Amino acid sequence: MLSEFELISRYFTRPLQPDSRTALGIGDDCALLTPAPGMQLAISSDMLVEGRHFFPHADAYALGHKCLAVNLSDLAAMGAKPIAFTLALALPEARENWLSPFARGMLDLADEYGCELIGGDTTKGPLTISITVLGEIPFTQALRRDAAQVGDDIWVSGTLGDARLALAAYRQELTLEAAAHQVAAQRMHQPTPRVALGLALRGVAHAAIDISDGLTGDLGHILARSRVGARLDVDALPAGPILRQQTTSLRRNFTLAGGDDYELCFTAAPQRRAQILAAAAQVAVEVTRVGQIEAASGLRLFDSGDALLELTVTSFDHFTA
Amino acid sequence: MLSEFELISRYFTRPLQPDSRTALGIGDDCALLTPAPGMQLAISSDMLVEGRHFFPHADAYALGHKCLAVNLSDLAAMGAKPIAFTLALALPEARENWLSPFARGMLDLADEYGCELIGGDTTKGPLTISITVLGEIPFTQALRRDAAQVGDDIWVSGTLGDARLALAAYRQELTLEAAAHQVAAQRMHQPTPRVALGLALRGVAHAAIDISDGLTGDLGHILARSRVGARLDVDALPAGPILRQQTTSLRRNFTLAGGDDYELCFTAAPQRRAQILAAAAQVAVEVTRVGQIEAASGLRLFDSGDALLELTVTSFDHFTA
Repeated sequence: MLSEFELISRYFTRPLQPDSRTALGIGDDCALLTPAPGMQLAISSDMLVEGRHFFPHADAYALGHKCLAVNLSDLAAMGAKPIAFTLALALPEARENWLSPFARGMLDLADEYGCELIGGDTTKGPLTISITVLGEIPFTQALRRDAAQVGDDIWVSGTLGDARLALAAYRQELTLEAAAHQVAAQRMHQPTPRVALGLALRGVAHAAIDISDGLTGDLGHILARSRVGARLDVDALPAGPILRQQTTSLRRNFTLAGGDDYELCFTAAPQRRAQILAAAAQVAVEVTRVGQIEAASGLRLFDSGDALLELTVTSFDHFTA
Repeated sequence: MLSEFELISRYFTRPLQPDSRTALGIGDDCALLTPAPGMQLAISSDMLVEGRHFFPHADAYALGHKCLAVNLSDLAAMGAKPIAFTLALALPEARENWLSPFARGMLDLADEYGCELIGGDTTKGPLTISITVLGEIPFTQALRRDAAQVGDDIWVSGTLGDARLALAAYRQELTLEAAAHQVAAQRMHQPTPRVALGLALRGVAHAAIDISDGLTGDLGHILARSRVGARLDVDALPAGPILRQQTTSLRRNFTLAGGDDYELCFTAAPQRRAQILAAAAQVAVEVTRVGQIEAASGLRLFDSGDALLELTVTSFDHFTA
């Protein structure tokens, strides 16, 4: 059995980058970070629990990727540039053939975004992964949830619902062909955090949030904090390639309230449309206009014929689910 | 059952302080923090798991206190001033009669140190508490583990071993009178982070670490990273009031390798003795000189007669324990 210190040093300690904000990394009581002048720090924490956020015996490499990806997605939704993260890890046992791919999955993604692992904790316990990410953002440029304006367009990045579709197939709520299931499952297991898009939207978008619990629930947070309402064009919602082949009802449900999408939902003035399309093209992410912010509170759903839809959608809650 | 959002807002959301570094707290994708000019950020994460770091059915108020205290202790060991923290919490169920005292225990301590809860995550799962604390410290003043100098005195704050003694009594490895057990248990359940002492040692001490896994193990980290050795005067180690009444062998073992002490071990030049005693007196914490940093690697233990002791002490490791 590896000791806690062998474990940390073997899999998680690497030299700091030369251009690092990190003055002191893993191995002291605290890490030390040097903030850049004129920047605010964006901080977010997420915890993933086996059997709840991922299947027991999930592929370790994909899991390492996903745990960091969902945290980077929070930075993306703020328009923040990733700097560093800490990892607190409870493990039933320190097995090398799990730890090695888990660390690689996490650190490969971290390297892609220049986000350094600067500290953390390891302990024995039920498999639980808790990450805190730190990013930076120029003063006043953060994409806050409370900044939506009446008249704003509502936009969504990428496509929605394929992760939820994969989950439905795993749960045998429906059947997918093997190849289709694999494509959808990739969305579920290895989401791409929209960091580049978040950076491109600084100073352009008003409010933003990442879609983790389902679009209607997450957009609902923007509406509540901005004290506005909205209309959503349900049939304009960009469904994932596999979900597109399903029934209208399933497509509507899973794009509206799928969960695990890790796309961005953001609002911006209609005058910004061309600028937003150009910014998205530059970072090679599709963005779709899906509705409008309105003064009247509440969320109204319309179909492609502009008829009001009476859909009951429930977004995911960890304690009432 | 409370929903996740009700739970967060009822127990963990409070108005930001007027002098806060926090520009945006709980309720967005990220919290936003404004670093003070000329300061570095100190960051540390700890994870506590039920049945491993605390007993099942532990008192919720004391547990809330302890979870934050062990994190503040890491800031103290760096000489950093607490600013803010995030809390990731996995709970089997959202029970109000647990959450309310747990939040109070944590936030009462947070208020004492002006450390704001700025974000986090809640999920269903085996009871696991993961905290990331952020502190600030002027450039170059951090008390690092790698800064011990040959000839330095080794100091310890407060007293050691009573928390370990309480644990031994809980485990029925020994018997304590009820009143004595209560005093010792208080040390185990509600440690006092030595934040004020850490601040007072800035620019005075060389290296520092907090004693969480036992003195020899934690001092060992200073020695390894500073590439030095040390002698420890075992009978000079300040034993807790209850441990003092036990056998010499028990006293030596539990002061050397008890664990859960959350005192500071630090090194400083002998010329600083008066200054250190004055600084400690000012913050009302006892400090005791317990040894010396030496060039020869390894840790040598001496008794009060200056005879070399051959003691085998094992410090706590979460994966080999």
